[in-house]
Amino acid sequence: MEAELKEMLNDLDSIKQSLPDPSNLASSILKLQSRVEHLTKLAKSAPVRRTKVQDMSAEVVDSNPYSRLMALQRMGIVDNYERIRELSVAIVGIGGVGSVAAEMLTRCGIGRLLLYDYDKVELANMNRLFFRPEQVGMTKTDAASQTLSDINPDVVLESFTMNITTVQGFETFMSSLRNKSFRPNKEGSGVDLVLSCVDNYEARMAVNQACNELNQTWMESGVSEDAVSGHIQLLIPGETACFACAPPLVVASGVDERTLKREGVCAASLPTTMGVVAGLLVQNTLKLLLHFGHVSPYLGYNSLKDFFPTMEMRPNPQCSNAACLERQKEYLLVKPARDAAIRAKMESEALSVPEGPLHDDNEWNIRLLDDIVVYMLMIYSVVDDTEPERTGATSSDALPEGLTRELPTADEFQKIPVTEPATTTFDDIEELRKQLDALNAD
Amino acid sequence: MEAELKEMLNDLDSIKQSLPDPSNLASSILKLQSRVEHLTKLAKSAPVRRTKVQDMSAEVVDSNPYSRLMALQRMGIVDNYERIRELSVAIVGIGGVGSVAAEMLTRCGIGRLLLYDYDKVELANMNRLFFRPEQVGMTKTDAASQTLSDINPDVVLESFTMNITTVQGFETFMSSLRNKSFRPNKEGSGVDLVLSCVDNYEARMAVNQACNELNQTWMESGVSEDAVSGHIQLLIPGETACFACAPPLVVASGVDERTLKREGVCAASLPTTMGVVAGLLVQNTLKLLLHFGHVSPYLGYNSLKDFFPTMEMRPNPQCSNAACLERQKEYLLVKPARDAAIRAKMESEALSVPEGPLHDDNEWNIRLLDDIVVYMLMIYSVVDDTEPERTGATSSDALPEGLTRELPTADEFQKIPVTEPATTTFDDIEELRKQLDALNAD
Repeated sequence: MEAELKEMLNDLDSIKQSLPDPSNLASSILKLQSRVEHLTKLAKSAPVRRTKVQDMSAEVVDSNPYSRLMALQRMGIVDNYERIRELSVAIVGIGGVGSVAAEMLTRCGIGRLLLYDYDKVELANMNRLFFRPEQVGMTKTDAASQTLSDINPDVVLESFTMNITTVQGFETFMSSLRNKSFRPNKEGSGVDLVLSCVDNYEARMAVNQACNELNQTWMESGVSEDAVSGHIQLLIPGETACFACAPPLVVASGVDERTLKREGVCAASLPTTMGVVAGLLVQNTLKLLLHFGHVSPYLGYNSLKDFFPTMEMRPNPQCSNAACLERQKEYLLVKPARDAAIRAKMESEALSVPEGPLHDDNEWNIRLLDDIVVYMLMIYSVVDDTEPERTGATSSDALPEGLTRELPTADEFQKIPVTEPATTTFDDIEELRKQLDALNAD
Repeated sequence: MEAELKEMLNDLDSIKQSLPDPSNLASSILKLQSRVEHLTKLAKSAPVRRTKVQDMSAEVVDSNPYSRLMALQRMGIVDNYERIRELSVAIVGIGGVGSVAAEMLTRCGIGRLLLYDYDKVELANMNRLFFRPEQVGMTKTDAASQTLSDINPDVVLESFTMNITTVQGFETFMSSLRNKSFRPNKEGSGVDLVLSCVDNYEARMAVNQACNELNQTWMESGVSEDAVSGHIQLLIPGETACFACAPPLVVASGVDERTLKREGVCAASLPTTMGVVAGLLVQNTLKLLLHFGHVSPYLGYNSLKDFFPTMEMRPNPQCSNAACLERQKEYLLVKPARDAAIRAKMESEALSVPEGPLHDDNEWNIRLLDDIVVYMLMIYSVVDDTEPERTGATSSDALPEGLTRELPTADEFQKIPVTEPATTTFDDIEELRKQLDALNAD
């Protein structure tokens, strides 16, 4: 607009010069001129985008957008923060969780973000963070790219306005994950992590399929239909349960997620729950990718009780997903050597640093577990407020407080035998899986 | 800008009409006109603000910004969501936690927000959510008001660009909290809750002083200097410990918060940790104000271990804060009657709804505890990942894993005796308080 206004001023000048009798006309034109000058000033005071930054600096000045992140190194939390600029994260679903996750990673200075969504921004989304009313009608990918590139122009953004559950969409999804042009010498796929922030079963199964095929580590996230609980989960093909290994048997809420998008049903949502889930998801992402702290295999959030259940899920050797079975075979081949190396490392660390801070290179601490296909709940005990002091013992024959069975909830699942809750054996899972498959085939 | 451009067009019209010889001049003016028309179109396509909404509707249409919130009623979470429009919340400190808390409450449709900060937006703040690079140089209150009123024009915003720790600032703070023009028939002060989102000890003590004097319930929040832990805490004058009753003895991190703003020291921060703390804070706020779920008296977040400690703190009968002592006396007078009423209610509920969902009108479940001045830790046990199954017993003679002493960390505190960790007696607290007071007097 500035260039246009400048031209207007030039035009007005030439009008004035070509004028035979200035008098009245001249004063009108002068008025016009001052108005245009005012407009020019307004246009000049409009938002200036921040310039790109060549290297992340730790310098403590107000003008450094990375000073508080680089300080993580001085604080002993992260060894090499700047490595984040080499990393690529794909976010599937740019809704209440995905958009906030994208903003967090953008502000952290992630190297590259791939965004997938086919939906448009609506006023009905305004009860969650990120999108603004002025973006209503835009695709979520366009609106997100606009906001994120304004926030941090250093991040390479790639957006895909499409549905990954269609045949064409899934192919594009796969090839976008394979694309290594950002870091040609990277091992494996072209991305370091996939975050699933979708709101339906089919899309999760599509992400699962792609990640199993590509041997791609990913994280799943979800928020319950009643808006007051959610979870995040880490999935490593062959090493942890995949999304097809078991139905989401036990979560912090009792909602069948396939009811989420039922016609005429409006699920509740809250910016708080979604903000917390996005925060936990990206924190787990940073811990995994920048190698600090303990990466949670599963973390639930029950906001009514401020209860945060955790658990681990091993892969199912009779999983219906062929790619998962291949990854499981590969993992079993390398596992003994990896376990031995980790054991040796932990023993040497135990000798040298008896009570040192948490800096585990044993990323998930889960490799020492037996290979039994048991969905082991390692649960925080729940505070009983009527007792002044409590050791927090959890009985093994009841679901811990705050956890309810997610499935079965639909009528179709009534016939499924209720199994021992906290520890579910392989037979029960297999049974559940078969019934789920039968249901999906409808 | 639109009005200005319209006037320009009118001016150009009158120039044309007063023109004796159109020829050359007229074509220049025509060119100008088309340019202004183009500018007008550009200006018209610029963001349109969403209009105000008279009543919150539960109608499930894309254009309803409140459909997903009103759905909380249909889901049985909240009895009367629309009550939120009558509520006022004051947020002190519009930084990494306060700004996100303000955005969450704005998107939830809170009636009125009071914002307090004296700082300006800097590029160094861009690693946290909310502020945008184009707002650099604006006061945080102005930038926040701009963003928040665009997001939800239904919220009444009042901003105070000032430091509440100065004498003048504190007086303005007090009178703004007392002001009842928004809801004249409200009991107590003019606000329903104060959220402290500041980053220093002095500001917390100022909020504490104001809330004790006004008998105003408030919540405190904080994030550690190393960016990887934080906490929220509920403070009810006379009923819970106030901020002067005890130093922040045990938190999820080992940081002396008074070092946060030391000259030349740049504290680390992360959008994840701050987003989670803001989410937990506003979730606790919604639970308290809209009467659902269990309101946490204290909730920590240790992100390295995904550990969420909780505890309760009773007031200190020898607190140095005179207003706190007054509130304690008042509370002790009404306590027996309140306890009896709550006991009767809980007993009748236990008879009628044996295992019903959590809908406690006994807001904090802490009134049945004995009145012993002991800082009782009711802690979730921590998962030990090297054991496949674990009941989660916490020994009472050691700090639970993930908790470290916050004070003493500064050199001045070296002489303070280390007391029994999980249960700290009144004598120890009193001793610590005296030393803190001595330090503050410097």
